[in-house]
Amino acid sequence: MGTVVVDVMPKPEILDPQGKAVASALPRLGFGGFTGVRQGRRFELTVEGEVTEAVLEQVRQAAVTLLSNPVIEDVVRVEAVADPSVADA
Amino acid sequence: MGTVVVDVMPKPEILDPQGKAVASALPRLGFGGFTGVRQGRRFELTVEGEVTEAVLEQVRQAAVTLLSNPVIEDVVRVEAVADPSVADA
Amino acid sequence: MGTVVVDVMPKPEILDPQGKAVASALPRLGFGGFTGVRQGRRFELTVEGEVTEAVLEQVRQAAVTLLSNPVIEDVVRVEAVADPSVADA
Amino acid sequence: MGTVVVDVMPKPEILDPQGKAVASALPRLGFGGFTGVRQGRRFELTVEGEVTEAVLEQVRQAAVTLLSNPVIEDVVRVEAVADPSVADA
Repeated sequence: MGTVVVDVMPKPEILDPQGKAVASALPRLGFGGFTGVRQGRRFELTVEGEVTEAVLEQVRQAAVTLLSNPVIEDVVRVEAVADPSVADA
Repeated sequence: MGTVVVDVMPKPEILDPQGKAVASALPRLGFGGFTGVRQGRRFELTVEGEVTEAVLEQVRQAAVTLLSNPVIEDVVRVEAVADPSVADA
Repeated sequence: MGTVVVDVMPKPEILDPQGKAVASALPRLGFGGFTGVRQGRRFELTVEGEVTEAVLEQVRQAAVTLLSNPVIEDVVRVEAVADPSVADA
Repeated sequence: MGTVVVDVMPKPEILDPQGKAVASALPRLGFGGFTGVRQGRRFELTVEGEVTEAVLEQVRQAAVTLLSNPVIEDVVRVEAVADPSVADA
């Protein structure tokens, strides 16, 4: 059983109200020195068998048809990870 | 100018309706072989200067106080990246 | 063709990091006098025919099985509206 | 203490991947007869005093500057409600 991570972010030229709210909240809560925040979505897809190149190609297609809106969002990562939710912690 | 990525995922024991919707939609759209999907959030925080250990420690604190709800979500990644939104594409 | 609106909100006792970020950002952007913000999700479901009681019952079931997580969220509204996205503007 | 509800929806011409995932999942879970789903955000803002016209005007401004991205989203509702989260259940 394998896991594929897909990260989707708003395109740089698209205003991101959720990221903007976080950016404005940080200094108020005592966190200084940040100049901007963007908020996107992270998906973890569990695969029945091994994560082959064919599986990754399926995920890449799903990423641009189902997981993101290519007009306003970029898929910034499609990658097999060894251990879901802790892989790159 | 540096960037720190924070990934937040629903805890494994928490039902995730958005991930469930994606998981149910995949086979209908012709994507087979997936047994589960979890949906979380990815943040990219831009930092004025270099990403020092002190900056990372600030982000770790912000991650559990502002960016996530520790009761239902795990912070699975806090990491400096060289290039925002394309770092690990 | 009819439309049903479903509103889902985090339960009052559940910490809501996205709402908290908005609440902290408001005074910084010049909006004072707000003591709290909660952020939930709003769904608009388009129905083939008329919105009958049977349709509403289906939506109520979908709301607690697919659209929300009943452990951490409340379905605060399931209602037929005359005109999607502008009904109660 | 009063509450103002703000509803934000993706503009009709904007592809909405989260709504699309829900729409594709519905028939698979036994819910038929739906032709489309859109997913937006609902905010509940708690106000210190009464919800006056001046407060509503502040919320209308916050809605288009902080709560939504006017390029891709519409604010479809800004309204005082008597009872948060249950007002129109």
